[in-house]
Amino acid sequence: MMNFASDNVAGASPKIIDALLKANVGAEAAYGSDSYTQRAETLLAELFETDVGVFLVATGTAANALALSALTPPWGAIFCHQESHVIDDECGAPELFTAGAKLVGIPGVGAKITPHEFKAALARFPRGVVKTSQPSAVSLAQVSEAGTLYQIDEIKELAEIAHANGLSVHLDGARFANALVALGATAAEMSWKAGVDVVSFGGTKNGMLACEAVIFFDRGKADGFQFRRKRGGHTLSKGRLLGAQMCAYLEDGHWLELARHTNAMAERLAAGLRAIEGVRLAWPAEANEIFPIMPRRIDAALRQAGFFYHPWSSLSLKPEECIGADEIFVRLVTSFATKVEDVDRFITVARSVASKPRFVLGSQRGD
Amino acid sequence: MMNFASDNVAGASPKIIDALLKANVGAEAAYGSDSYTQRAETLLAELFETDVGVFLVATGTAANALALSALTPPWGAIFCHQESHVIDDECGAPELFTAGAKLVGIPGVGAKITPHEFKAALARFPRGVVKTSQPSAVSLAQVSEAGTLYQIDEIKELAEIAHANGLSVHLDGARFANALVALGATAAEMSWKAGVDVVSFGGTKNGMLACEAVIFFDRGKADGFQFRRKRGGHTLSKGRLLGAQMCAYLEDGHWLELARHTNAMAERLAAGLRAIEGVRLAWPAEANEIFPIMPRRIDAALRQAGFFYHPWSSLSLKPEECIGADEIFVRLVTSFATKVEDVDRFITVARSVASKPRFVLGSQRGD
Amino acid sequence: MMNFASDNVAGASPKIIDALLKANVGAEAAYGSDSYTQRAETLLAELFETDVGVFLVATGTAANALALSALTPPWGAIFCHQESHVIDDECGAPELFTAGAKLVGIPGVGAKITPHEFKAALARFPRGVVKTSQPSAVSLAQVSEAGTLYQIDEIKELAEIAHANGLSVHLDGARFANALVALGATAAEMSWKAGVDVVSFGGTKNGMLACEAVIFFDRGKADGFQFRRKRGGHTLSKGRLLGAQMCAYLEDGHWLELARHTNAMAERLAAGLRAIEGVRLAWPAEANEIFPIMPRRIDAALRQAGFFYHPWSSLSLKPEECIGADEIFVRLVTSFATKVEDVDRFITVARSVASKPRFVLGSQRGD
Amino acid sequence: MMNFASDNVAGASPKIIDALLKANVGAEAAYGSDSYTQRAETLLAELFETDVGVFLVATGTAANALALSALTPPWGAIFCHQESHVIDDECGAPELFTAGAKLVGIPGVGAKITPHEFKAALARFPRGVVKTSQPSAVSLAQVSEAGTLYQIDEIKELAEIAHANGLSVHLDGARFANALVALGATAAEMSWKAGVDVVSFGGTKNGMLACEAVIFFDRGKADGFQFRRKRGGHTLSKGRLLGAQMCAYLEDGHWLELARHTNAMAERLAAGLRAIEGVRLAWPAEANEIFPIMPRRIDAALRQAGFFYHPWSSLSLKPEECIGADEIFVRLVTSFATKVEDVDRFITVARSVASKPRFVLGSQRGD
Repeated sequence: MMNFASDNVAGASPKIIDALLKANVGAEAAYGSDSYTQRAETLLAELFETDVGVFLVATGTAANALALSALTPPWGAIFCHQESHVIDDECGAPELFTAGAKLVGIPGVGAKITPHEFKAALARFPRGVVKTSQPSAVSLAQVSEAGTLYQIDEIKELAEIAHANGLSVHLDGARFANALVALGATAAEMSWKAGVDVVSFGGTKNGMLACEAVIFFDRGKADGFQFRRKRGGHTLSKGRLLGAQMCAYLEDGHWLELARHTNAMAERLAAGLRAIEGVRLAWPAEANEIFPIMPRRIDAALRQAGFFYHPWSSLSLKPEECIGADEIFVRLVTSFATKVEDVDRFITVARSVASKPRFVLGSQRGD
Repeated sequence: MMNFASDNVAGASPKIIDALLKANVGAEAAYGSDSYTQRAETLLAELFETDVGVFLVATGTAANALALSALTPPWGAIFCHQESHVIDDECGAPELFTAGAKLVGIPGVGAKITPHEFKAALARFPRGVVKTSQPSAVSLAQVSEAGTLYQIDEIKELAEIAHANGLSVHLDGARFANALVALGATAAEMSWKAGVDVVSFGGTKNGMLACEAVIFFDRGKADGFQFRRKRGGHTLSKGRLLGAQMCAYLEDGHWLELARHTNAMAERLAAGLRAIEGVRLAWPAEANEIFPIMPRRIDAALRQAGFFYHPWSSLSLKPEECIGADEIFVRLVTSFATKVEDVDRFITVARSVASKPRFVLGSQRGD
Repeated sequence: MMNFASDNVAGASPKIIDALLKANVGAEAAYGSDSYTQRAETLLAELFETDVGVFLVATGTAANALALSALTPPWGAIFCHQESHVIDDECGAPELFTAGAKLVGIPGVGAKITPHEFKAALARFPRGVVKTSQPSAVSLAQVSEAGTLYQIDEIKELAEIAHANGLSVHLDGARFANALVALGATAAEMSWKAGVDVVSFGGTKNGMLACEAVIFFDRGKADGFQFRRKRGGHTLSKGRLLGAQMCAYLEDGHWLELARHTNAMAERLAAGLRAIEGVRLAWPAEANEIFPIMPRRIDAALRQAGFFYHPWSSLSLKPEECIGADEIFVRLVTSFATKVEDVDRFITVARSVASKPRFVLGSQRGD
Repeated sequence: MMNFASDNVAGASPKIIDALLKANVGAEAAYGSDSYTQRAETLLAELFETDVGVFLVATGTAANALALSALTPPWGAIFCHQESHVIDDECGAPELFTAGAKLVGIPGVGAKITPHEFKAALARFPRGVVKTSQPSAVSLAQVSEAGTLYQIDEIKELAEIAHANGLSVHLDGARFANALVALGATAAEMSWKAGVDVVSFGGTKNGMLACEAVIFFDRGKADGFQFRRKRGGHTLSKGRLLGAQMCAYLEDGHWLELARHTNAMAERLAAGLRAIEGVRLAWPAEANEIFPIMPRRIDAALRQAGFFYHPWSSLSLKPEECIGADEIFVRLVTSFATKVEDVDRFITVARSVASKPRFVLGSQRGD
């Protein structure tokens, strides 16, 4: 797997595809009343250590947009980082499912919202002023689009501001597992205990073929959600497809195992890159995404060697200030399917064309 | 499989689940740029013998609602049978994706629209009258919700009326394969050659786990459809899930083989039921759905024996006129997974409590 | 005024236009915080003898569509007569403002819903079945599109069915005044006392230039309505335009005076027509709309004489059964501006080409 | 009129209210087919010196939101200044009418978009990338929310960038007249000759009671607009209300006369303020809005004296950097009803509590 373009380029983990195979036999009730989906709901309640409303869907965009639609009226404002997935990468899905709510992008380094900027944004949307979209929700991405993490206390602080202002808190957990493993927290700690009201609990990027769960900690907020999902065309008739994946994902800690490997590969890759003269990371690599700025000749050598990955850009990194003319800014993503030898080969190729190593591999400081 | 509730209660056919397993290995481009999806597009073009725009999605509701959204402005009227799936069973999905177009239900026996009723409905929506939703499309279900079929010439006649009035023609082919096999037609004959502009080409009900294709014969109508699908949350990141299913479905005529078996089971079941004293069919059983009206004691015996199926109702069959107080109206659906012995056991149980058999089972072939 | 086409063809009553002139002077707060609008709200509370939430808008379509949007989620079903204004004459406005709710047309003679048909329609939308749009509201038109009236007890019975099934009740009162005067009821009796939750309180058809009020009897249902109106573009910046009209309309019973004259003109017209050989009324003329079926030669003479009015059609009056080849079905509407001499001239012309009068004017039976 | 809060606090100009009175008599066709509306269309075509599609509505929010809905698919992105009326003050109306398009706010001093920032914003929305809302239109406000103006050449340059990138150009002309008079341009020069495709031609802020026109220079873009307006509830049944206002507004240059007076009052007010020690204007006062930053003691004296106006804020004027702790930032707006003595009294009061005058009033003409 010479592909660091995305955690979407791999298929499902062997355990999960096996579970699909096994679940394929026999009759099951349709539209999510199957035994697999019901067991998945139980497993998620156990994982989150509380009563939850669970709705499985096949895509992260559906999970996010449907979740947000439960938190806002059409005249609401949803706050999010200005480069978050919900505002930038879903082609307007939240606007479709919320019937036209306004997503308000908040600036911030490393794709994270700070309490200061959140409050400043809220101040521009006075409650009760009729011409103004009314503050309804905030959406936090954990892992963020810059591969960074909110610490539990940071989530708490933002959630407190949100609740004090009458907003609900959504967590876009497309990479929930990667974040959880990196923080060493429990699912409950990183969600409802920190003030999160609804989670998009991602699985596709971490070894499922197509499965995400919208998880409500307040059943009241989930009222009518089964109709939202249905009219969005997101209720699979053969619900076992989703349920069986989710069961296998959660059982025996398989999902954490997958995420640990993924993160370890990213850490190894980041360490290797940091040791190369002329390469630097735009943001700390806290989960499974790495954003190096590197000499173009290294990029050329990597692509020549057959590696795939995407060039990147960010509003908080202006090319004229931060990136030299002979440099390129890229994103590297590891997945459950990334192998140690892929990472090492990547580093070897990159180092081979670098001027000279700054450090010996292994001695790098935490950055 | 004692379950005749729906063609959704089975999993995928063995060939298709095997194909998923094989397609799971290695890196593939995300969001439908994978090699499987591309091959599926080629296979569908070959099948329909023309250039097509193909968009794979995971549910029939998504296929229908997205397809219709490409055919109407928000102020348009979409004509369909008053008991069709798009108007009755999708919880308003077409209204969501069309941004509020109006579905106009047309009455008709056996869930089929007649040219006469279609014209009468059109007359109530004069073009250019600003207070009136403007006629934009007609949606025909093939197989219909009553298990009946439009003959090719019937589709042609309705399509001609539609086109003469400036409407596009959508075919809800959730059971496209069952219809095609029953009619002995080619895919081209049952679609664009008969005047159909867009098909929801179903697969989930006929042996896939979750896969449908929206197929455009006029690429102009597909303009922007990739954005429609994306903002609907219907673009799977690991597109191979859809592509691999569709390839295995189409290759070597697997889909037709599945449909032939399914239809044969329905035919056997219908023949058996017709031979039972006191049982009659509401409509001719032309594909894989059978709608018997039968004595309640037979129903009781069948449920006692462990058979599952749904009670039914229809606007064109008023209980007070058509169904006796000691009778029940039900729907039976066969699938690729229905076995001969399931059917025979069903008939045996039903016959055992009937007054007396009208015919010996086996003498009924060919109806 | 030789124009019986609509009650929209006249301007405003002299009192109302004078009030506009007087209200034009001086500074007033914008967006509905002006003193006229506030006084209108007080007057409406007095009129309805209860606490009300009042929202003025400029069009009846806005009033209806916004009112309905407060009563249904996007996946809701709104029941109405199949030829009602909200389903037939608003070009999909309710679908726009409700974000895609489904309007379900119920058949019924004289554009009225019967309890039997209402219950039958409800039975087709089982609550909690996820594929089904969920019953949310019923909309009754008083006066109906056929010029007929619901008696207070009829409203009560329908409202009871609605509430027992969890639906809200909307009254489309575009001709509220005409109905009230005809029934001799109070505004409270014809609305909340009969179980109505929200009224579109029309004024434009009864002598205002452009003003309707959405009136909520349950403030909870009005929650957020100011935002609904604003994002619909229906909050006038110079709110005095609406407020001043409404004040003049309600003060000193002006609105009832206007409606009484209008209805009297219709009654005179209906009486004259009934007395003419070969002319019959499709439905009883209960307010200010009359629906005669008459010989084409009478129609020709009237148009020749310069009268304007619209041909009509109805699903409950099939031309082949009810209307002869040499007959025409038309609608006549009177307004506050209709004069006795207009009516008498109309009758004189019609009678002059009729074969012979059946009765002497004045002796007609109540039909 | 001690009220400088908005150009919405006055009623209509005497000429316009008189025209309404005169137009009130007699029968007119409904829904915009009246003679007044038709004449207004002719007058607007003459004014703009070209064939135009004209649609009258009662509010500026309706005009803007409906106009934008004709320029974008639901998955489109509409670029505008980040503090423009369409993104900040319409409670999501553009999102409602466009079925969920995304408004993208662009930063810029004085509420104006620069070519540089416009291009930078466009670069973030690559055409054809399916996850990205697709660039569809740019909306320019003339006069801007900061009371500033685009020079004709500035409009041209932005329009060229827009068209080169496949975007349409909308001009929010809520204060079209004020801008036109200030620039000394013709209506054609400030619109289609500069590359504008659609104008919201405002009138309410400049002396009408409630009337705006959506004006298309490309009839193709207006296709279906009559249905958009109707389903938005924005087609007045007694269309003469709008038509008669617009005719009186345009005839004999009345609208320009009103705007000239309004702008002159603003100029006089700005000149007076600039001459006061400690008062400065945030942006040049180019039309009829003035944004002074002034000592709080002056503000207190003015409010004490009975003047009304709003405090203000702007993203480009950070309080901690630009506004002292003892200062206040406010907005003053003049209208056709502002009198010279109101302005002079305002200045006199302000000056009376200022430390000392920098200049004598009267020596400031011409800035």
